[in-house]
Amino acid sequence: MKSSLLDELIDALRCLPGVGPKSAQRMALHLLERDRPGGERLAAVLQDAMARIGHCKVCRTLTEHELCRVCADPGRQRDVLCVVETPADVLAVEQATGFRGQYHVLLGHLSPLDGIGPEELGLDRLETRLDQGEIREVILATSTTAEGEVTAHYIGELARARGIRSTRIAHGVPLGGELEYVDRGTLSHAFEGRREY
Amino acid sequence: MKSSLLDELIDALRCLPGVGPKSAQRMALHLLERDRPGGERLAAVLQDAMARIGHCKVCRTLTEHELCRVCADPGRQRDVLCVVETPADVLAVEQATGFRGQYHVLLGHLSPLDGIGPEELGLDRLETRLDQGEIREVILATSTTAEGEVTAHYIGELARARGIRSTRIAHGVPLGGELEYVDRGTLSHAFEGRREY
Repeated sequence: MKSSLLDELIDALRCLPGVGPKSAQRMALHLLERDRPGGERLAAVLQDAMARIGHCKVCRTLTEHELCRVCADPGRQRDVLCVVETPADVLAVEQATGFRGQYHVLLGHLSPLDGIGPEELGLDRLETRLDQGEIREVILATSTTAEGEVTAHYIGELARARGIRSTRIAHGVPLGGELEYVDRGTLSHAFEGRREY
Repeated sequence: MKSSLLDELIDALRCLPGVGPKSAQRMALHLLERDRPGGERLAAVLQDAMARIGHCKVCRTLTEHELCRVCADPGRQRDVLCVVETPADVLAVEQATGFRGQYHVLLGHLSPLDGIGPEELGLDRLETRLDQGEIREVILATSTTAEGEVTAHYIGELARARGIRSTRIAHGVPLGGELEYVDRGTLSHAFEGRREY
């Protein structure tokens, strides 16, 4: 028996992360039975977003315009640049901190074995930005994985070569974390990074 | 600052059940960064499904055709009719059991306080089907809630008035259930419904 449109919808919903066959079925039936306007709006916005959202030509985060909101905002500091791995990291920093500077989104991290070198991360573009002389501090906010550390080190060297200060975000015990449940690497980092109290 | 297309997409994804702001953001970024073809397909199928999927004119389950797959299948038994509350229940019965008969989908249950009476449940249409004389057994598979029981009772009476046998699916201890953790109502039902061993 050939698949019905409902089966196709259930199958299509499975492209969403964390959505298995059961959740996809529940979502499809919910939209069809209880929220058709929501489903129609989602279809329209999704189509529009997939067609129009690209990358900011300055910082490479996701945007439907040539410049993202941050790069287009004349009110933000132009002398501090935060380097992150993904557009999700930009959202996280914007939502959690009072950071008002610029970003550079790598869309990955250095990983020579996977063929990801400086070019794939847009580091040529980053170098051009650093060369323009406006930036006085580069905040390295890549992940604390091995690749993230290598990437941070590489970009730190680019900054140092131009006499620009580079800083790394603090790694330590998370707020509310109990010492006995924190992993050894984090605890060791927290001791090394201790500050005057 | 006006909302960006990415914000709109995140907001639109929240119409899906069980999807809060964090999951919606993760889904939007996943589609944009890693699965644009999946996102485009979802948009197209969703639009199509919202526009074309309606209710089967015989059993009222969801279908994009005049008749659903079950009602259109000449190979299925025409003398047994299973009454369920929702299209999801049809899928559950089809996936779990070897039932090969017909369905009637109420799209709800009797609930006079909410203005849901026999007409809203398509019981006039069900009566017409019962009157046609093909059906010899009505399986009452409504929920075990108070409203589900009332609905089952009402439809049981419709069948009885026409001399048609009506049966209720068994209620008891679920497979793998341990007696000490089963609620009292279920255990009491299981005792009343005991069978020869």
